Amino acid sequence: MSTNDWLSEVRWNSRGLVPVITQQATTGKVLMFAWMNPEALATTVKEGYAVYWSRSRKKLWYKGEESGHQQKVLDVFFDCDEDVVLLKVEQKGGIACHTGRESCFFRKLVDGKWRKTHSEPVIKDPKLIYRSKGQ
Amino acid sequence: MSTNDWLSEVRWNSRGLVPVITQQATTGKVLMFAWMNPEALATTVKEGYAVYWSRSRKKLWYKGEESGHQQKVLDVFFDCDEDVVLLKVEQKGGIACHTGRESCFFRKLVDGKWRKTHSEPVIKDPKLIYRSKGQ
Repeated sequence: MSTNDWLSEVRWNSRGLVPVITQQATTGKVLMFAWMNPEALATTVKEGYAVYWSRSRKKLWYKGEESGHQQKVLDVFFDCDEDVVLLKVEQKGGIACHTGRESCFFRKLVDGKWRKTHSEPVIKDPKLIYRSKGQ
Repeated sequence: MSTNDWLSEVRWNSRGLVPVITQQATTGKVLMFAWMNPEALATTVKEGYAVYWSRSRKKLWYKGEESGHQQKVLDVFFDCDEDVVLLKVEQKGGIACHTGRESCFFRKLVDGKWRKTHSEPVIKDPKLIYRSKGQ
């Protein structure tokens, strides 16, 4: 058996990707949702830090590379249909979202409108998170 | 403003679908992952019970219709990119997975293999959940 048999058990979609749900291990809060290709998933498992596939940039996305908000992977789960991955992580800096919030799911449907919830405040100004390099 | 403006704010994918993460409200456990089209999401919000889009059957999937394992929707969240929905639900019967488990994420990567976790036992035999109608 190859050591990467577990990787070939994943049912990659027609674009070669699998959806990934990332959850804070200690609290169960869902932090974000993204995609991985086989290289991203293999690297995530090997390195122990979440690496996604950026569909817009069409390259590996080393989460937290610029912001420092890495996700240390504690557990990797797989669903019954073998086509979704769930990561339990320790979120560095307590911020997963590019808006500076802990979670990307900071809007809630209330009375027919998506409203920002008070329970997901901006922890750090995104301008301070993402500094332009070389300036 | 139309009462369905919130629905048009969703960035539906090229197939007209949005990914949906469903989480047990009380414990934070991620129960399942599925897809919705606009009709499914509108019906979910209107009825207060999760209705997905079945990509295999190409029709609305009234979760729990046959099994009784409906998901009462307590909150609907929306992510920063406006293309993922997160439901917080009360899972009827404590079983979301068609295998008879609480969660679809019952396999964990351990030593290079996807292994069933003891923390996700089969609560009810699927044969007893899904009885053939008319027999």
